[in-house]
Amino acid sequence: MQGQAQQQAYDRGITIFSPDGRLYQVEYAREAVKRGTASVGVRTEDGVVLAADKRSRSPLMEPTSVEKIHKADDHAGIASAGHVADARQLIDFARRQAQVNRLRYGEAVGIETLTKNVTDHIQQYTQVGGARPFGVALLIGGIENGEPRLYETDPSGTPYEWKAVSIGADRSDIQEYLEENYEDDLTLDEGVGLALRAIASANEDELESSGVDVATVSGDTEAFVELDNDGIADYIAENDLEPAEDEDESDE
Amino acid sequence: MQGQAQQQAYDRGITIFSPDGRLYQVEYAREAVKRGTASVGVRTEDGVVLAADKRSRSPLMEPTSVEKIHKADDHAGIASAGHVADARQLIDFARRQAQVNRLRYGEAVGIETLTKNVTDHIQQYTQVGGARPFGVALLIGGIENGEPRLYETDPSGTPYEWKAVSIGADRSDIQEYLEENYEDDLTLDEGVGLALRAIASANEDELESSGVDVATVSGDTEAFVELDNDGIADYIAENDLEPAEDEDESDE
Amino acid sequence: MQGQAQQQAYDRGITIFSPDGRLYQVEYAREAVKRGTASVGVRTEDGVVLAADKRSRSPLMEPTSVEKIHKADDHAGIASAGHVADARQLIDFARRQAQVNRLRYGEAVGIETLTKNVTDHIQQYTQVGGARPFGVALLIGGIENGEPRLYETDPSGTPYEWKAVSIGADRSDIQEYLEENYEDDLTLDEGVGLALRAIASANEDELESSGVDVATVSGDTEAFVELDNDGIADYIAENDLEPAEDEDESDE
Amino acid sequence: MQGQAQQQAYDRGITIFSPDGRLYQVEYAREAVKRGTASVGVRTEDGVVLAADKRSRSPLMEPTSVEKIHKADDHAGIASAGHVADARQLIDFARRQAQVNRLRYGEAVGIETLTKNVTDHIQQYTQVGGARPFGVALLIGGIENGEPRLYETDPSGTPYEWKAVSIGADRSDIQEYLEENYEDDLTLDEGVGLALRAIASANEDELESSGVDVATVSGDTEAFVELDNDGIADYIAENDLEPAEDEDESDE
Amino acid sequence: MQGQAQQQAYDRGITIFSPDGRLYQVEYAREAVKRGTASVGVRTEDGVVLAADKRSRSPLMEPTSVEKIHKADDHAGIASAGHVADARQLIDFARRQAQVNRLRYGEAVGIETLTKNVTDHIQQYTQVGGARPFGVALLIGGIENGEPRLYETDPSGTPYEWKAVSIGADRSDIQEYLEENYEDDLTLDEGVGLALRAIASANEDELESSGVDVATVSGDTEAFVELDNDGIADYIAENDLEPAEDEDESDE
Amino acid sequence: MQGQAQQQAYDRGITIFSPDGRLYQVEYAREAVKRGTASVGVRTEDGVVLAADKRSRSPLMEPTSVEKIHKADDHAGIASAGHVADARQLIDFARRQAQVNRLRYGEAVGIETLTKNVTDHIQQYTQVGGARPFGVALLIGGIENGEPRLYETDPSGTPYEWKAVSIGADRSDIQEYLEENYEDDLTLDEGVGLALRAIASANEDELESSGVDVATVSGDTEAFVELDNDGIADYIAENDLEPAEDEDESDE
Amino acid sequence: MQGQAQQQAYDRGITIFSPDGRLYQVEYAREAVKRGTASVGVRTEDGVVLAADKRSRSPLMEPTSVEKIHKADDHAGIASAGHVADARQLIDFARRQAQVNRLRYGEAVGIETLTKNVTDHIQQYTQVGGARPFGVALLIGGIENGEPRLYETDPSGTPYEWKAVSIGADRSDIQEYLEENYEDDLTLDEGVGLALRAIASANEDELESSGVDVATVSGDTEAFVELDNDGIADYIAENDLEPAEDEDESDE
Repeated sequence: MQGQAQQQAYDRGITIFSPDGRLYQVEYAREAVKRGTASVGVRTEDGVVLAADKRSRSPLMEPTSVEKIHKADDHAGIASAGHVADARQLIDFARRQAQVNRLRYGEAVGIETLTKNVTDHIQQYTQVGGARPFGVALLIGGIENGEPRLYETDPSGTPYEWKAVSIGADRSDIQEYLEENYEDDLTLDEGVGLALRAIASANEDELESSGVDVATVSGDTEAFVELDNDGIADYIAENDLEPAEDEDESDE
Repeated sequence: MQGQAQQQAYDRGITIFSPDGRLYQVEYAREAVKRGTASVGVRTEDGVVLAADKRSRSPLMEPTSVEKIHKADDHAGIASAGHVADARQLIDFARRQAQVNRLRYGEAVGIETLTKNVTDHIQQYTQVGGARPFGVALLIGGIENGEPRLYETDPSGTPYEWKAVSIGADRSDIQEYLEENYEDDLTLDEGVGLALRAIASANEDELESSGVDVATVSGDTEAFVELDNDGIADYIAENDLEPAEDEDESDE
Repeated sequence: MQGQAQQQAYDRGITIFSPDGRLYQVEYAREAVKRGTASVGVRTEDGVVLAADKRSRSPLMEPTSVEKIHKADDHAGIASAGHVADARQLIDFARRQAQVNRLRYGEAVGIETLTKNVTDHIQQYTQVGGARPFGVALLIGGIENGEPRLYETDPSGTPYEWKAVSIGADRSDIQEYLEENYEDDLTLDEGVGLALRAIASANEDELESSGVDVATVSGDTEAFVELDNDGIADYIAENDLEPAEDEDESDE
Repeated sequence: MQGQAQQQAYDRGITIFSPDGRLYQVEYAREAVKRGTASVGVRTEDGVVLAADKRSRSPLMEPTSVEKIHKADDHAGIASAGHVADARQLIDFARRQAQVNRLRYGEAVGIETLTKNVTDHIQQYTQVGGARPFGVALLIGGIENGEPRLYETDPSGTPYEWKAVSIGADRSDIQEYLEENYEDDLTLDEGVGLALRAIASANEDELESSGVDVATVSGDTEAFVELDNDGIADYIAENDLEPAEDEDESDE
Repeated sequence: MQGQAQQQAYDRGITIFSPDGRLYQVEYAREAVKRGTASVGVRTEDGVVLAADKRSRSPLMEPTSVEKIHKADDHAGIASAGHVADARQLIDFARRQAQVNRLRYGEAVGIETLTKNVTDHIQQYTQVGGARPFGVALLIGGIENGEPRLYETDPSGTPYEWKAVSIGADRSDIQEYLEENYEDDLTLDEGVGLALRAIASANEDELESSGVDVATVSGDTEAFVELDNDGIADYIAENDLEPAEDEDESDE
Repeated sequence: MQGQAQQQAYDRGITIFSPDGRLYQVEYAREAVKRGTASVGVRTEDGVVLAADKRSRSPLMEPTSVEKIHKADDHAGIASAGHVADARQLIDFARRQAQVNRLRYGEAVGIETLTKNVTDHIQQYTQVGGARPFGVALLIGGIENGEPRLYETDPSGTPYEWKAVSIGADRSDIQEYLEENYEDDLTLDEGVGLALRAIASANEDELESSGVDVATVSGDTEAFVELDNDGIADYIAENDLEPAEDEDESDE
Repeated sequence: MQGQAQQQAYDRGITIFSPDGRLYQVEYAREAVKRGTASVGVRTEDGVVLAADKRSRSPLMEPTSVEKIHKADDHAGIASAGHVADARQLIDFARRQAQVNRLRYGEAVGIETLTKNVTDHIQQYTQVGGARPFGVALLIGGIENGEPRLYETDPSGTPYEWKAVSIGADRSDIQEYLEENYEDDLTLDEGVGLALRAIASANEDELESSGVDVATVSGDTEAFVELDNDGIADYIAENDLEPAEDEDESDE
C-alpha cells in the first residue's frame, strides 16, 4: 500500500527521478514492452535473423496487418515489441534517418549509427517534459561493412549489441533458451531455426506459419528479405514446431 | 477502492504509463468507443461494406443527421463509433490526406496509406501532452489496386486489417456473430446482408431502415455509394430483419 | 462521498476521459446549458421558428438586453441556452463564418455547413488543453437551397438536425410536449404557436410578450425576421397563453 | 466540511465547470464585486446618471484619488464596483475601443457596441487558461443616437441593459430601493436625486459630498460631466441626506 | 486548522479568487510589505517629503546601501517598503516610464500618470499566470503643474493619493500619528519634522541620522533632493528625537 | 507536523508568497547558501579582501578545482558560498556584464552597477515561474572611482554594501568575529589577516594554505590578484593559524 | 513514513529547493549514478587513465556495446557512470564543444574549458523547469598544455579536478582504495594497474578483460587510446586480477 503511494508520486507530469534514482515512467514503459508478443533476433556469421510472434486475436483479422517486422532500408530491418503505435513512430524515424544518410553521404547508414540515432531520439522523451516515453523496444538488424550486426533499443534510449536477443513477452524464458542453444558458427538457416524454436519454446513448442513473421539480411546479398508463408511453413516443419491437430483454429 | 485511487493517479494531465505499462487515458478512450452504437465492416471478394447502427434518440431528430458513415474519397468510405465530434475531426483529417495525395501524386490514396496517416495522427494525441486522445474508432474501407481493403483504427493509433469487424457497442457479441457467419466467398450483396444481420444480432434481430446507414465500395466501380432508405429496406426485408409491429415508433 | 472524490479527479486541468469513457467537463458544460432558460426551434414546411424564454430577473432590466435570439446572416438565425457570454463568442464566430462564405464563394452559407463550422470549433475546446468547453447549446435555423433546416449544437461539438427541439431548462418536458404535438404539415404560423405553447408548457401555460423572443426564417423570403412585442402578443393571445392577472409584474 | 473540499477542487488552475455547471472562479469574482462600495446608474428620459459611494478609509486620503467614475469618451462614462486595479484595466480597454471607433468610422462608438467589446474581453478571461477573471462590475452609460443607454457588465462577461441598477456592496437592498422608487418619466435632476438616495438608503440615509462621485451624460449635450463637490452638496441638501453632526470626520 | 487548509488551496499556481472574492496571493504580498521597515510620505503646501526607516541589521553594513528612497526623475522620488529586490524592479520601471515621457512628449511625466503606469504594471502580475505579485508598496511623490502630489501603490495595483501616509511596519500606529498631527498649512520643513516624528513614534521616539533616509521635492525648485547625514541630524535634533546614550551602537 | 504541511504548500511550482508574506523558495535557497563553506569579504582603506574556506572532501581532489573566488574583471573579484553550479552561472553573467560595459562605455563597470545587474538577474528567478531561485550568495569586491567597495548579493536579489561580511556556513559566528575585530583604519595586509582569522574562528582557529583562497583588489593597482599557496601560508603563519601536527591530512 | 511524505513534496514538477536547501531531484540523480557500474580515473605524471567496469548482463550481449569510455577529441576521453542514455547526450554535447573550439580557435579545447562547458549545460537542467537533471556523472581526462588533467562532473553541474577518482557503484570503497594506494610519481602503466585494482577491489579482486574498458591519454602523444582485449588481459595478469576458474561464465 505504501509502496504504491510512493510510486504514484513519480507518475505525474514529466519523467523525474525517484529517491532511489529510478525513472518510473521509463520502467513502466518497459512493462508496456513486456505486454507485447515476443520478437527475437539472431546474428549468425552469414547474416541477421529477425522473427516475431504475432498471433492474431481473431480469425477475421488479417495476419499481415499485425506488422512486427519492417524494412528500415535495403540492408536493414527492424522488429518491435510493445506499444504498436509507438513502434510505428520510431520506425518512421529510423527510415527517415536512413534516407537522410543516403542523400547526405551517398551510402547506406551503418547499423550502429542508425541505432544510436533512434536511441538519442528515445532519450529525449525521457528527459524533456510534455510527452511520455516510447512504450516499445526495437531490434535493429542488418549488414554494416559486410558484417552482420544486431542491436536492441529499450525505452530508456540505451543501445545494446547482441549475438541473439529476445524482447517482449516471456523475455527471460526465451533469452534463456537462446543462451543455451546459441552457437557462434550458426548458418543463417540455422539462425532462422533457432529464432523460431526460441519463440516456440514459450508457446508449448508450436507455431503456425501465419502466427510468425520472419525476415533475414544475409551478408552476401546485404538485402532485407521477408519470408512468405510457405517459406516460414518449411522452417516450422524442419524444426518440428507444427501445431498438433486442433479444431478451434483451423481456418485459413 | 484502492484500485480506484490507483487509477486516478494516471488520469491527470498528460497521457502517461501506469506501473503495469498501460495508458489509462487510451483505455478510457476505448470505453468512449464502446459507448457509441455499433458500426460493422465486411470485406468481400467484390468490394467492401460499411454499416452503422444509428438509432435516433428522439422521433423528431432527423435520422440523416446522425452521420456515422462518410465518404473519404471517391474510392473510400469511413464508418465510426464513439465520440461523434472527435470522429468528425479524424474524418476531416482523412479527407484532407486523400486530397493531398491526389494533388501530389495524381492518383487515389491507398487504403493502407490513408489508414496509417490517420493512426499516426491519433498516436500523437496519446504521447504528446496538452490534449486528450481521440475517443473514437474508425473503419476505413475501399479499393486499392483493384483489391477490397478494410481497416480499423483504435484510440491508441494502431491500424488493423480485417475481413470483417465490428466497433462500438456490443463489439464482442457482433464480432462473434461475424466470426461464425463470415465466409471468404461472399458476394458484395451477401456482405451487406451479413453486416445488417450482425448489427441486428445485438438488437433482438430487428432493424428499421432509418436506423442504419449502409455504404459500399465495389471492386468494379471503385466508387463509394451510400444506400438510400428504400435500398436498405429491401436488404432488411430480404434478411427477415423487419421489426415486429410496434405502435411506439411508427412515425415517418 | 466516494463518487464525489472520483469526479473531482476529472475536473482539473484539461478535459480528459473518465474510466467509463466520459468527458466530465463536457457533461458539466451540459449542466450549464440546463441552467439557462429554454429555447425552442420548430421546422415547418414554410420555414423555421426560433423562440426563447427570457424572463427577466428584475422589472428594471431592459427585456431586449437579454438577447437569446440573434441574426447569423440574412437567411439564418441562432437561439441559445446556457452561459450567455459563451453564446456571444460562438455567435460571433458563426457570423464571421457566414461572412467569409459570402466573400469567398459569393453565396449564402449552407445551414449544415455553418453548423459544422461551429461544432468543429466547439470540439477543439473539448480536446486541446488550456481552455474549458463552451457552456452553451445553440439552435441554428435557416433556409438552405429553399429548404428549411434546423440544427442543434451541444457542448461536445456534435451537430444534430431536428424537426423540433428544445434546449436549456426543462428540456425533457418541453421536448416531450413537442413530440406529442408536432405534425409534419405545420404552417410557419402554426409553428410559432407550437413553439410558444411548448415553452409555456413548462411555465404553467402562461407567457408574457416581453418574456419571450421569437424569430422566423420563411422559405419564401429566406429572410430572418424578429417579431416585435405586438406580434408576439398576438400569438400569445391566439394560443390562450396570456398570464392570469397578477399585480406584481405589471410594469412595461 | 465536505462542501468545502468540493469547492476547493474547482479553484485551482484555470476556470472550469463544476458538476452542476457553474464556474466557481466567476462566482468568486462576483464576491469580489460585492466587497467594493456601491455604484448606481439611473437612466432617465433626459440622460444617464452614474453615482458611486467612495467613502475614504482615512481622513488623510485624497477623496478624488478613489476614482470610481471615469470618462470613457465624450458621450459616455463608466462607474465601477469591485477590484479597483482590475477596473482600471477594463476602463483603459474601453477607452481604447472608443478611440479606435472614432478613428476607424469617424463617429462616436455606440454604448451597446462599447459594452459588448468590453464583455467579450471579459469572457476570454473566464474561458482561456493562464489568467483569472476580472473581479469587477461596470456600469457603462451614455447617449447613443440621441437616446440614453445604461449597461452593466459582470465578471462572466454578460451585458445587461437597465433603467436603473446597482452594483457592489448592498446590491440587493439598493436595487430594491430603485425598483420601488424608479419612474419612467424622471428628469435627469430627479435621476441624480434617486441615485443618491439609493446609495444613502444603505448608509442610514446620510451622505457626504466628498463621499460620493456623480456624473451625468445628458441627451441634450451628449457630454459626460462630473459634478464638483458643491454640485453634489446641493443635491445632498435637496434630498435631505446631510449627515448628522459628527466631530470625527469633519476635516476638509 | 481548517481555515489553514482552505487558504492553502488558493496559494498554488496562479493568483485566483477565494470563495469570498479575495486574492490571497495579493493579501500575502501585503504581509510582505508589513515585514519591511516603514516609509512615510507627507505632502505640504511647499512640496513633498519622503522619509524611510532603514535601521541596519549590522554595524558593518553600509547604511547607504539600504536604499529605500530613490530618485525617479528630476521632479519625483519614490520610497518603498517590503521586498527590496521587488522594489528595485518597480523603481527601474518607473524611471524608464519617466524617461520615455520626456523623450516622447518633451516634458516631465505627471506624478499621477507615473503612478498609474506603475500600478497598471503591478496589476498584470496579479491577474496573468506565471509570476507572483510584487511584494512591495511604493510612495511616489513629486511636483505636477507646480502642485505637490503624493501617491501610494499597493500590491494589488491600486493607486491612492494622500496628504500624508505610511507604508510598511507599524503602519496603523504611524498612520494614526499622522492623522493626529497633520495640518494642511505645514511648511516643507515642518513636513520633514512630522515625517521623522511619525517614524520615531513607533521607535520609542528615537532616531539616528544614519537610520533614516529623507528626501524632498519642493514646489519652488521642482527638484528631488536627498538630505545628507548632517541635514538629517539637524532635523532629528530640532525634533528632540536623538537617541539616549547607548554604547552598543556607537560606531561611525 | 502541521507546520510542515503548511510549508509544503508553498514549495510547489513557482515561487509564491506564504500567508505571512514570505517566499519560502527564497528562504530555502538561503539554506542552500548556509550549506556551503564560508566566504569572507573585508573592505579596508587600501583595498578589498576576498577569502574563502574551501576545505576539500578528499586528499585526492585538487584544491584548486574548488573555485570559490573568481576574477570578474581587471578591477573586481567575486567570492561565493552555496550551490557551486549556480555560482558559476552568476559569475559568468557578471563577467559578461563587465565586458559589455567596457565595450559600450569604454570604461570599467562600477562595482555597485555590476552588483545591481546581478541582483536584478537574481530577482527575476524569484518572481517569474518556470525556474527556481539561485541557491548561492556572492561577495563582489573591487575598486570604483579609486574607492574600495564590497557588496553582497543574496538569493532574493537584494544588494547590500558592507565594510566586512561573511556568507555561507557559520555566518553568525564569523560575522560576530568581524564585528568585534573590524577597525576602520585597517591596511590591506591587516584586512587579509582579519579575513583569515575570521574564517579560522569557526574552524578551531586553524587553517591550511590549501584550504583557503584569498584574493585582493588594492586601491593603488586597481588589479584583482589571487594569492598563491606560499603567500597564503605566510599570512597563516603571521596570524598563528597553522594547524597542530596531525597525521591524517599530511599529504601534498 | 513522515520523511517520505516530506520528500514527495519536492519531487513533482520542476527542481526546487527543500526547506533545508537541498535539490532532491539532483540528489536522486546522484542515486541514478550509484546504480551504474563504477568508472575510475587516475592522473599520473605521464598521462591520464580512464577505466570502467562494464560487466555484461548476458553472455550473448556484445561486451563492446556497453560503451562506458568514449573519445571526446584527439587529446581527451570521457568515462561515465549512471544512466547510459543520458551519458550519450552529454558526450555528444562535449564532442560538439570540442569541434566548435577547433573551428573557432584553431586549437584543441582545454580539458578544464571542456569540463565547464559540460557542467554549465548540466546546471541548466537543474534550475530551469520542463526537464529533469541528467542522471549521470562523467570523468573527463586529457592533456592540456602538456599537462595531464582529470575532471569529474556530477548531476548538479559542479566540476571537480582530481588526482584519482571513482564514480558509480561502490564509490566510497573504491575511492578509499585509491586514497590508500595513489602515489604522486606513478607511471602511466602503474596508473592503469591502480585503476584496474581499484575496480577489482569491489569485485572480490577479480576482473575479466571483456568486463572492463581502459583508455589512456599519454602526455607524450597527447592521443586518446583505447586498449584492446589483449592489452587489458596483460594488465589483468600483471596485477593478479584473473578470475578463479568458474564454469558458469566460460564463453567467449
